[in-house]
Amino acid sequence: MATETHSVRNKTPGAIILFMLPLITAFSGLADEAPKPDFAIAIHGGAGLEPNKLSAADRLEHEAALRRALLAGTEILASGGQALDAVEAAIRVLEDEPLYNAGKGAVFNSVGTHELDAAIVDGKQRQAGGVAGVTTVKNPISLARLVMTQTPHVLLMGAGAESFADEMKSHPQIERVRNDYFSTPHRKTEWLEAQARESAKRPAAPPDGKSTVGCVALDKLGNLAAGTSTGGLTNKKWGRVGSVPIVGAGTFADNETLAVSGTGIGEQFLRNSVGFHLHALIKYRQLSLDQAVDDMLERILPTDTAGIIAIDRSGHVNMRCNTPGMARAATDSSGRVTIQLER
Amino acid sequence: MATETHSVRNKTPGAIILFMLPLITAFSGLADEAPKPDFAIAIHGGAGLEPNKLSAADRLEHEAALRRALLAGTEILASGGQALDAVEAAIRVLEDEPLYNAGKGAVFNSVGTHELDAAIVDGKQRQAGGVAGVTTVKNPISLARLVMTQTPHVLLMGAGAESFADEMKSHPQIERVRNDYFSTPHRKTEWLEAQARESAKRPAAPPDGKSTVGCVALDKLGNLAAGTSTGGLTNKKWGRVGSVPIVGAGTFADNETLAVSGTGIGEQFLRNSVGFHLHALIKYRQLSLDQAVDDMLERILPTDTAGIIAIDRSGHVNMRCNTPGMARAATDSSGRVTIQLER
Repeated sequence: MATETHSVRNKTPGAIILFMLPLITAFSGLADEAPKPDFAIAIHGGAGLEPNKLSAADRLEHEAALRRALLAGTEILASGGQALDAVEAAIRVLEDEPLYNAGKGAVFNSVGTHELDAAIVDGKQRQAGGVAGVTTVKNPISLARLVMTQTPHVLLMGAGAESFADEMKSHPQIERVRNDYFSTPHRKTEWLEAQARESAKRPAAPPDGKSTVGCVALDKLGNLAAGTSTGGLTNKKWGRVGSVPIVGAGTFADNETLAVSGTGIGEQFLRNSVGFHLHALIKYRQLSLDQAVDDMLERILPTDTAGIIAIDRSGHVNMRCNTPGMARAATDSSGRVTIQLER
Repeated sequence: MATETHSVRNKTPGAIILFMLPLITAFSGLADEAPKPDFAIAIHGGAGLEPNKLSAADRLEHEAALRRALLAGTEILASGGQALDAVEAAIRVLEDEPLYNAGKGAVFNSVGTHELDAAIVDGKQRQAGGVAGVTTVKNPISLARLVMTQTPHVLLMGAGAESFADEMKSHPQIERVRNDYFSTPHRKTEWLEAQARESAKRPAAPPDGKSTVGCVALDKLGNLAAGTSTGGLTNKKWGRVGSVPIVGAGTFADNETLAVSGTGIGEQFLRNSVGFHLHALIKYRQLSLDQAVDDMLERILPTDTAGIIAIDRSGHVNMRCNTPGMARAATDSSGRVTIQLER
């Protein structure tokens, strides 16, 4: 598990950095001097964060939630467990956390209910599972994993995905809940405000698919895995599906190159096959992970649309966004932990 | 429109080739000597065709249906119309044709109804639209196009996509039908046989998502477009979504590289982001269209899983499969037409 070797609050407000300063560069991509870790893990809670609007209490809440999720994954990796298990465990914690738009705390759609999307990808086998529009599965990431392992399919949607969950009812990870389990007062307020804006024909606020959650991990055997989970857009209509449940768009992993989970405007991730695109930049253009992520965020995707967490096969982590903020955290076998909210 | 300059039945039974022999190579990828055409178009009716089981009448039916669809697209391109319009028009003909598993003639799902998927991609703007699990829209390809042009989204599913169709009801391309409009006696028989196999626990027949349809086109302005439409798998459960509605997987277009529509085992196309992958092989590895398609069908995708039609920005067409057969046809501004069923 992660141990804190140092605690420094740096000058960027809110960027809580809990590891020795010389190693910051290992995570920020400015240098690659760190020895290869035995395992590594990174998580995010969405690229729509506006750090300048956060109170001190908000920041502490994010930091605590990210730390709990990181711990769940790290315990598995440290004891020799699989990257896939770590990804699932960390995302389950984030899904259960009302702060994020996934599982409990998911946004409301246009008819006042919740529809959840998730996907998981195994970089070893290049297998994947995704679900779109599930409504009564407490932890959609676990259902996505069963799509991967228990069906010949990659993507199940809506009532069909629910009926698959019925068949998996004896599985301990598949807990069913009423749809209003996902509701929180904060999300309801957001939704009512979005509805009021819409009926007043005032310009809509930017889409609030902000607090999507995700995780990428490298295990001791060298396997990479990635997962992402979301409630989508506030007041969403028409059964809109974003990039989260789509392998190659919001979520991708290949042991040869990287594991990646994206957050931001899902349509941009879909149009640009962002996950697979990063894989292609590394594999076919021989870019490093940092070069590939820079290329994506600075050249390919429009400003203020995206955040990416990614890890390469040597355990090097990149967590960047082209939005004002992204809740994210990482650790590895050295025990150093980084938690960051600002861009 | 396409004119036939020559009619030759070559020694491969069923490969009806209706253009001058020296130019066969322009389509089969063995040479690139042909001058750049002003426009070009290719269509497919699925990679699951088993040519050795086709009667002479079956062959004639395929050839006639492919010719009608090709004509619909070609008329638009010849008169200076857009690649997108040609793709939509050709696919509408194939959707209306009971022979193929898209629109009328779509396969039955496990509860005896029809759920249709489609996507269209504009290579000029890199915009895309897709629908999954629609049930009452006669021509899903036209609904996919309206997702692209009339919403900020890329993918709509199920009841939500139907409700978007309600909002588009004044659009002339959006005709609504009862779900049993899509039923044909042949598909019902297939479904009943699949159910009988399943209840007898006999090994399932290979998935019958065979007769997916698609189109790729290059217009006189140099714009590329691609579209695909399908009813999915016979007896499909759990709201399974394949690669067809997913931009970057079954359907992709970028004016800089290619337009492509895939057919076969959708899960393979999803896991390998096949459409975007071909784009990356051309853009980042500098492969030719033919090299990229060969790489995909011979090295990346397992044998007997896939067919691809693709066109590059010079109007060069490639229509290959690694299955025994694929119904396909192409023509260009020279007036030459090729129709092929065998591998």
